[in-house]
Amino acid sequence: MNQPIGVIDSGVGGLTVASELMRQLPKESIIYLGDTERCPYGPRPKEEVVQYTWEMVNFLLEKNIKMLVIACNTATAYTLHILREQLDIPVVGVIQPGARAAIANTRTYNIGVIGTEGTIASEAYPASLRHINAGITVHGLACPRFVPLVERGLISGEEAYQIVEESLEPLKQHKQMDTLILGCTHYPMIRELVQEVMGSTVAIISSGEETAREVSTILGFKKTFYTGDKAAEHQFYTTGDPIIFEQIASRWLEQKIEAVNKIQLTQVKSMEK
Amino acid sequence: MNQPIGVIDSGVGGLTVASELMRQLPKESIIYLGDTERCPYGPRPKEEVVQYTWEMVNFLLEKNIKMLVIACNTATAYTLHILREQLDIPVVGVIQPGARAAIANTRTYNIGVIGTEGTIASEAYPASLRHINAGITVHGLACPRFVPLVERGLISGEEAYQIVEESLEPLKQHKQMDTLILGCTHYPMIRELVQEVMGSTVAIISSGEETAREVSTILGFKKTFYTGDKAAEHQFYTTGDPIIFEQIASRWLEQKIEAVNKIQLTQVKSMEK
Repeated sequence: MNQPIGVIDSGVGGLTVASELMRQLPKESIIYLGDTERCPYGPRPKEEVVQYTWEMVNFLLEKNIKMLVIACNTATAYTLHILREQLDIPVVGVIQPGARAAIANTRTYNIGVIGTEGTIASEAYPASLRHINAGITVHGLACPRFVPLVERGLISGEEAYQIVEESLEPLKQHKQMDTLILGCTHYPMIRELVQEVMGSTVAIISSGEETAREVSTILGFKKTFYTGDKAAEHQFYTTGDPIIFEQIASRWLEQKIEAVNKIQLTQVKSMEK
Repeated sequence: MNQPIGVIDSGVGGLTVASELMRQLPKESIIYLGDTERCPYGPRPKEEVVQYTWEMVNFLLEKNIKMLVIACNTATAYTLHILREQLDIPVVGVIQPGARAAIANTRTYNIGVIGTEGTIASEAYPASLRHINAGITVHGLACPRFVPLVERGLISGEEAYQIVEESLEPLKQHKQMDTLILGCTHYPMIRELVQEVMGSTVAIISSGEETAREVSTILGFKKTFYTGDKAAEHQFYTTGDPIIFEQIASRWLEQKIEAVNKIQLTQVKSMEK
């Protein structure tokens, strides 16, 4: 099925998810839309996040996408169930895949989750984990210093290591914890630092990697893989500055990203499609 | 949704998949059916495997299962596409989940697969891997000595190590290979030996673990998780000797399995449901 997969995010963080989609599913074309202008979604009230998400969704539905990936933890927490109910195409969020991978991995049933303050406060990961297995102990920790670190490009070196070490200190007391979920799409960029600080006995689960894996599962289940011979074609849209977006996207995707389109989203009156 | 998940296999091997389902999805009830009397399916002609599989499926459909897991590589290779077409419930096989997990893990795009002679000769894993990513190099190796080893209970010690080492020798030349799929449901029992022989640079992917993970994905996608408070109740059926089945099941599932039912499957006239 030669239709693209749509990926939405409040900004650039979801590019780590797009990057994994491109790596794991090289035949599939991606349309990425980052609402950079109104980023971050975390501190916004739920109604606003739902409305902004619908605006992005409506834009991508016009592009005839065959599947929607909500590559944003906040938007997943607030809109996944609504979008699954109301769209005719499959919708995949970033929270459940990470939760499932952590459950598959853990042997101590002690799982850590790090994310933004909004994501941790929402309790979306504990809810998702306990929905599947009520016996799991979850250790949540907000790491507000990580997103600025990544956006400054400070993903290795002494200063970065120190910030990661200080931030993760509270998790170190949980000796039983054998699995840690990176519950923010920015964090895969500092995965190695997190691994170093936590030590080799803790498995690090990247939501982006796991989300791409589940997109593959659903494509297989719905028989909607692209099976033709055309090379994948990706498109990028942002509501913010396309030049800044191109710079970050080129660095994160490790390829030259050009012709990023700046768009304006239309305000939706109703939350229906 | 308080209906059980049906698991079918040609014999006891699929118990490793059932075990992972119970571990990852402790709220879900499982009905397991092993066609031990006619095991193994590997050397049988395709038509026969298709017919036997339909007989198992019809038995489980009467039990009102909400999902079907084909916990047998041979049956998956021959019947997954037919069953997906003809059943109204979701059907998950053991080949694609392992393939997807390997693709998510590999960084060298060199993946090894070990299995029975039938599974390796069927090229089902290379087909599944390349369906998703045409650029993957696959190294297949039949390990006919592994199933007898596991069924004898010889899963550790000097003799077992030696057999595993000798069998895997041909794979050692592929220095680029960073991921190895256990393409037989018996092999998770000797996972540690395989890991030891292959060394820590090769990640071992267990099809059973990954299949349970994908069952979780599909349950979430279809909103058919059991969300009530009742404890899970598992049932076991075999076409062979129930006492032998009980012994193996108790050992593999690490819990006392009793009241295994011996049944006779009804010959189906047509391959339609």
